[in-house]
Amino acid sequence: VPPKPPHPRFSINQITVPAWDIPQLADACIARGIDKAGLWRHKVEETGLQETIRILGDSDIKVTSLCRGGMFPAASEEERRRRIDDNLKGIEEAEALGTDVLTLVCGPSEGQSLAEARSQVRDGIEAIIDTAREANVKLGIEPLHPMMIDDRSVIVTLKEANDLAAHFEDTVGVTIDAYHVFWDVELELEVGRASGRILSYQISDWVIPIEGGLTSRGMPGDGSIDLKGLSHVVDDARYTGPIEVEILSTRWWETNPDEVLDLVLERFSDCVA
Amino acid sequence: VPPKPPHPRFSINQITVPAWDIPQLADACIARGIDKAGLWRHKVEETGLQETIRILGDSDIKVTSLCRGGMFPAASEEERRRRIDDNLKGIEEAEALGTDVLTLVCGPSEGQSLAEARSQVRDGIEAIIDTAREANVKLGIEPLHPMMIDDRSVIVTLKEANDLAAHFEDTVGVTIDAYHVFWDVELELEVGRASGRILSYQISDWVIPIEGGLTSRGMPGDGSIDLKGLSHVVDDARYTGPIEVEILSTRWWETNPDEVLDLVLERFSDCVA
Repeated sequence: VPPKPPHPRFSINQITVPAWDIPQLADACIARGIDKAGLWRHKVEETGLQETIRILGDSDIKVTSLCRGGMFPAASEEERRRRIDDNLKGIEEAEALGTDVLTLVCGPSEGQSLAEARSQVRDGIEAIIDTAREANVKLGIEPLHPMMIDDRSVIVTLKEANDLAAHFEDTVGVTIDAYHVFWDVELELEVGRASGRILSYQISDWVIPIEGGLTSRGMPGDGSIDLKGLSHVVDDARYTGPIEVEILSTRWWETNPDEVLDLVLERFSDCVA
Repeated sequence: VPPKPPHPRFSINQITVPAWDIPQLADACIARGIDKAGLWRHKVEETGLQETIRILGDSDIKVTSLCRGGMFPAASEEERRRRIDDNLKGIEEAEALGTDVLTLVCGPSEGQSLAEARSQVRDGIEAIIDTAREANVKLGIEPLHPMMIDDRSVIVTLKEANDLAAHFEDTVGVTIDAYHVFWDVELELEVGRASGRILSYQISDWVIPIEGGLTSRGMPGDGSIDLKGLSHVVDDARYTGPIEVEILSTRWWETNPDEVLDLVLERFSDCVA
């Protein structure tokens, strides 16, 4: 029996099934009729950029986002410059992969004050925006859950991401990941404010206990996030693009990736508006 | 050598050293000249309310807060009524212990929508406020870190706590715990807004990795929170009351409580304005 075709907005973020390299991911997508995937730069590097482009072209898989740029704050100017160079490389890779979204995980404070680190994030985006504009790559500021402030990002609310994006006239938008923002009493307001600059929408679920923070995410439907409700809010903000399932999870990473992907597909339609 | 007298605003929250019962805590406080402690109801129950009152009176220890009321949201009206009864009992205990602050950990959603649960928190406070007012006990809404939304509290920002407290004319205020709020870009603004209704100020530190969420806190000075900076902000909001050290930590709970308390005292003066 051929599988039911995936929802037209479905995209699999490859970090959900990191045991697969890109050729394996492409094969798994072809077998299921999946035509969209979110990629991570270290996985692209593993296969090689040109080889990745060839495989995706042969498989008719569109890259919905590339993760990640960002990581702007650092104590020394030299190190900040290195981070910016890495972002410029990320923009080039995104352009080459044919995606128009580079996701920005803005970076932790690295021993500086939060205010200082946040201003370095703005300076960092300022330093790369022209290159992004020329490459037709948009920069998606992703607010991360406040529990990740010390690991990954000093930008931890959608309000901050919106304020930061609004500082730029074009090219900069926001990435909304349900896991990072669901708790926010101002979520509906801020998703509305983000209308017109929502570059990505990602889902997973909130499950407890939290273990380690970064890889504690749940399979959509297993946790407490009202994903369908949030998807309605995001739809109402006139975002019509792909919906990526992105589950960073020690538990699911230990499971056979074929099973994980099948379950993700099964759960997906209950989570969209 | 007699120990250096503790900072005049120092209060030890007993959950930092839960291996001690109240008689042991009192002895440890007397030995160090500590005259203030924050108590937890299950520990008071362990020793007995009247016996606790006697011991604290003999030891000249003032109770700076009692933890906890709250836990208002529940799916059935019967269960919500039971929670309210428990809060009324908490108010009585606070009054008997001579503290004017009952800390409210507002409770998770218990399968309901966040909006519904949040409205049940407001209804719950409404249902106990008269009793609190008559007992001269103030209700301290404590916003908890957003990573605890599913375990402990649907109120996860100081803005929400302030908005909720402002809904009531008197008797309701906020408890500011550095661990729960430090990440917030609007922290300074909201601490300012809280001026006049800050009932408690508590400190610990943010250390990673997060393990289990609830008991992952660090010793002041071991983590990334700018405690001295926050203490200045709280001072500027004209809060002049006690500063409780409250560390829920699997790691420190496994350490000899005498050592923990000595280290807390040593670190304290670096963390206050």
